Amino acid sequence: MIHILFLFVFLSSTSHAAIRDFCVADLNATQTVSGYPCKSPETVTVNDFAFSSLKAGNTTNTFKNSLSPAFVGQIPGLNGLGLSVARVDLDVEGVIPFHTHADASELIVVLEGVITAGFISSDNKVFVKTLTRGDVMVVPQGLLHFQINASKGKSTVYLIFSDPNPVAQLVDVALFGNNLNSNFVAKTTLLDLDQIKKLKTAFGGSG
Amino acid sequence: MIHILFLFVFLSSTSHAAIRDFCVADLNATQTVSGYPCKSPETVTVNDFAFSSLKAGNTTNTFKNSLSPAFVGQIPGLNGLGLSVARVDLDVEGVIPFHTHADASELIVVLEGVITAGFISSDNKVFVKTLTRGDVMVVPQGLLHFQINASKGKSTVYLIFSDPNPVAQLVDVALFGNNLNSNFVAKTTLLDLDQIKKLKTAFGGSG
Amino acid sequence: MIHILFLFVFLSSTSHAAIRDFCVADLNATQTVSGYPCKSPETVTVNDFAFSSLKAGNTTNTFKNSLSPAFVGQIPGLNGLGLSVARVDLDVEGVIPFHTHADASELIVVLEGVITAGFISSDNKVFVKTLTRGDVMVVPQGLLHFQINASKGKSTVYLIFSDPNPVAQLVDVALFGNNLNSNFVAKTTLLDLDQIKKLKTAFGGSG
Amino acid sequence: MIHILFLFVFLSSTSHAAIRDFCVADLNATQTVSGYPCKSPETVTVNDFAFSSLKAGNTTNTFKNSLSPAFVGQIPGLNGLGLSVARVDLDVEGVIPFHTHADASELIVVLEGVITAGFISSDNKVFVKTLTRGDVMVVPQGLLHFQINASKGKSTVYLIFSDPNPVAQLVDVALFGNNLNSNFVAKTTLLDLDQIKKLKTAFGGSG
Amino acid sequence: MIHILFLFVFLSSTSHAAIRDFCVADLNATQTVSGYPCKSPETVTVNDFAFSSLKAGNTTNTFKNSLSPAFVGQIPGLNGLGLSVARVDLDVEGVIPFHTHADASELIVVLEGVITAGFISSDNKVFVKTLTRGDVMVVPQGLLHFQINASKGKSTVYLIFSDPNPVAQLVDVALFGNNLNSNFVAKTTLLDLDQIKKLKTAFGGSG
Amino acid sequence: MIHILFLFVFLSSTSHAAIRDFCVADLNATQTVSGYPCKSPETVTVNDFAFSSLKAGNTTNTFKNSLSPAFVGQIPGLNGLGLSVARVDLDVEGVIPFHTHADASELIVVLEGVITAGFISSDNKVFVKTLTRGDVMVVPQGLLHFQINASKGKSTVYLIFSDPNPVAQLVDVALFGNNLNSNFVAKTTLLDLDQIKKLKTAFGGSG
Repeated sequence: MIHILFLFVFLSSTSHAAIRDFCVADLNATQTVSGYPCKSPETVTVNDFAFSSLKAGNTTNTFKNSLSPAFVGQIPGLNGLGLSVARVDLDVEGVIPFHTHADASELIVVLEGVITAGFISSDNKVFVKTLTRGDVMVVPQGLLHFQINASKGKSTVYLIFSDPNPVAQLVDVALFGNNLNSNFVAKTTLLDLDQIKKLKTAFGGSG
Repeated sequence: MIHILFLFVFLSSTSHAAIRDFCVADLNATQTVSGYPCKSPETVTVNDFAFSSLKAGNTTNTFKNSLSPAFVGQIPGLNGLGLSVARVDLDVEGVIPFHTHADASELIVVLEGVITAGFISSDNKVFVKTLTRGDVMVVPQGLLHFQINASKGKSTVYLIFSDPNPVAQLVDVALFGNNLNSNFVAKTTLLDLDQIKKLKTAFGGSG
Repeated sequence: MIHILFLFVFLSSTSHAAIRDFCVADLNATQTVSGYPCKSPETVTVNDFAFSSLKAGNTTNTFKNSLSPAFVGQIPGLNGLGLSVARVDLDVEGVIPFHTHADASELIVVLEGVITAGFISSDNKVFVKTLTRGDVMVVPQGLLHFQINASKGKSTVYLIFSDPNPVAQLVDVALFGNNLNSNFVAKTTLLDLDQIKKLKTAFGGSG
Repeated sequence: MIHILFLFVFLSSTSHAAIRDFCVADLNATQTVSGYPCKSPETVTVNDFAFSSLKAGNTTNTFKNSLSPAFVGQIPGLNGLGLSVARVDLDVEGVIPFHTHADASELIVVLEGVITAGFISSDNKVFVKTLTRGDVMVVPQGLLHFQINASKGKSTVYLIFSDPNPVAQLVDVALFGNNLNSNFVAKTTLLDLDQIKKLKTAFGGSG
Repeated sequence: MIHILFLFVFLSSTSHAAIRDFCVADLNATQTVSGYPCKSPETVTVNDFAFSSLKAGNTTNTFKNSLSPAFVGQIPGLNGLGLSVARVDLDVEGVIPFHTHADASELIVVLEGVITAGFISSDNKVFVKTLTRGDVMVVPQGLLHFQINASKGKSTVYLIFSDPNPVAQLVDVALFGNNLNSNFVAKTTLLDLDQIKKLKTAFGGSG
Repeated sequence: MIHILFLFVFLSSTSHAAIRDFCVADLNATQTVSGYPCKSPETVTVNDFAFSSLKAGNTTNTFKNSLSPAFVGQIPGLNGLGLSVARVDLDVEGVIPFHTHADASELIVVLEGVITAGFISSDNKVFVKTLTRGDVMVVPQGLLHFQINASKGKSTVYLIFSDPNPVAQLVDVALFGNNLNSNFVAKTTLLDLDQIKKLKTAFGGSG
């Protein structure tokens, strides 16, 4: 049999077993700035890199949407790789409300139906487009954006993120879904206090 | 006189004059993903690294604030260095409205007066603090935040950004200051159409 | 109307019009290490961020596959954002041959059919999985991998890359599709010279 | 009340509570290349993002300076954000001796008084400027620089760093404040041995 | 003696002893995406930054090569610094088989003898060069490459990597040295099944 | 002949010929923060990736050293790859004076002779080691360091840098080789004015 010293040296060059092609997340360990610490290499299997499956969820909420994620919590092998994906289903009249992702750009791929997607740039230009099956649109990191089901039936999209564990901040939830002083909201948005109180009630906020 | 070959070799190791300690922005050149191309080294002076001066501006606008920036446009030497600063003055009742910086974290240093500053995390916790002279607070990149003058007189802060050319997206301007369809705004924020129309008028938007 | 000095200062803080939320590729300009230079902001429209559409292509080639890309060449707004997507269709018996992406990790999302996907780690473990509609699998950057249509009909997948302009190196093409000396190939792969010559002929190589 | 599935999915997409907008330093944990591990999210409060307060310190040392830092040790929320700030006070005749920051660029903002600041580029150009209240100057990462109080009274500056935990290496301390062999210093600086011995004594060095 | 407050503040600005100039690997700790956690600063010595010595190894294996690494396992101080080096010796007729480094570019410096080195770009150009003592050649990250001893005696090279802990994936080992189904290999490489079986036997593979 | 659509699509996915595996420096073009723009792919040859040869230089200067670089100016293919190398020869009594590299860590590999190398950490620890043929030592980025020939004959080392175009700042040259005001030097180093004047004369400085 062939004797290959070269590869062996590469493999044994650290003092203990080490996975160096990837860093599968140990989801129970304390996170660092760069993500999760790596699982022990002996315990890594192909299932750390795969997820079954992205499906339509329940769309009975107010915005008639569902989101099925394949983030690092579902695929620990995504840790450190700068990628994740989610499936979003929108029922008739369904929307994804105005929100931002502080840590990720987003690529929208339409799987079924018709979607009107839009983002606003920081110099206040409006970028809106109606997309159908197979169409793709990208939203640069950190900008306010939304999606509206523009079909008469259900619509489905894949959302691809440039982060294995993306966050989302919904404008409504941030303004109305917590105990932030209503006067602060009024002063810093110029919304009427009545409007704020009404939405605070709707979103479960106080103050 | 001493003859130093070592340094000379480092300096002449590329085929033409090159500045390699820094990349002073050529503000007239086409930007790249990593910022501005570098000015010719022969034309760089200490004035490319300095700016005089950060002063109080006119605070007669609706939000009674002024912002005096020292960004890459004022200090071309900031290009590529991941830093910039601005001075903000708030008159009595002055505020910085709810906004995000898609590309920068922000460090607030209070120079004069009293400020109530706050940010909302994406899991919807409220982080609010009242700061006085010499106090410091940091807002992580991409999160919604605001500042309110909490003193009976003027207040002044330095805002430090982790980007040489930061952007700001104001929620109000994004929702009400452009031609985005009012029905889209209503659907994706649940704000009343009356409220939207009123603020569209105030912020100069249409649609 | 409301007067907002704050935003205006952010917008005018550089000496000329600048897009700072994104850097849409000027595809005719000379690339840099970090991608394409940015298009002039005045010429950017929503179409720079969208592409219509990802469709099945012609699968009459040897490997019975087709690839429809949405890379920076199709969506200039992807420049600098670390994301792209492609649709791959595999006819009956279709495969994606063994290859690597030097610059990107890859996320596979099965749209239709059944796929057997696999990658080999550098410590020579085999990670193989058969995936069906809605299943997801990730291949870490730089590792050898392949996909085989495992259904009795056509299969379709989305391939998501962590680079706006990914490259692919096929083992066969690198070994047999160019003028690399056959003796060098034999020495450095231990393949039989007959086998090399046969595949050199098939892949159009010489030497 | 409004039911928002979208946000909930983003929040619960990992298997346990996780803060993903920021990584507040657990100062008692072992550091990594990218900084401190993150504190448990349940224990994070607004006080992790704020510090009170930057004040003038005691300037009775040889160089008549004081430095009051707001680094990650004071503001754990700075971890991973690439920013920190310090207040420096210089008494009459006070200086900051020649030094480098290996890991950070530095932005100087003059709060009070008059400062002469300078840095030397690696191609040996001198960049010196006298700055007054409100003036700003940037020192690119890794270059030798100094500051001298140029007023007849006290001067105060804010120093802003592009690192949450910057280091400083003082030339004098490195050459004279340790047990480095004096002959090595002489050979590699061409300073006279007398001068070296004198400063070794002054700075507490030996050898 | 001179009293230096400035440096002291920099050193004591975190709540406990911290090394901040470097992060020497604790090789027994769990790795993160950015490498090993840092050793306790009290235990760091100059030996963490040095290694003695890179020597010729045994070249009695099939490919008549030996590799003596100075990676992070040998020099824990390399952790986080993006550099490592190895010495490779090739006996007469010795080769380094076709392989890739997923995580590192490679710089070849010829110490002794004559080497023919080559890499293939992803657009299938062949870059081959014969190098003698003192010659240098670089192989960009992730591309297939090889080295062949072109002298009548032994040859020695230093290989420099842009990663402190580089991995290597040998094409032969990946295709023939594991239990990957031979039919999969045949389909995805077009190699003859006989050839595959022969090399599977040689490289210890099965399936 | 085999027909491979897959690779063709990857190659043609941008609107014009593009090199995407590497970005060979166009040394005549204006640099950006991330290095040189890329040469046109049609003009790239293997010679852009190779250099012949690293040789001993003239060591008749004051410090009895010579440096033969293989930086991006010699190997344009290093652009963007984070690596370079130089050969340093030290005659009897030769030294590399105290200096820093603001942009690169340095790996020393001893080729011939005996070297005493040292660096000082920012918390003022001395890391000194005497190295012989085949020994390796790393100097973390930005720290003051030196090398002294410790053999009775010539010594030769390879210096490997984590930057394709490293800079060097020599303490002596920065303090004494320019027109920086001698009083500023005295105040910020505590060196005697006599010593400063003497070395200003030696290093060709004024002021």
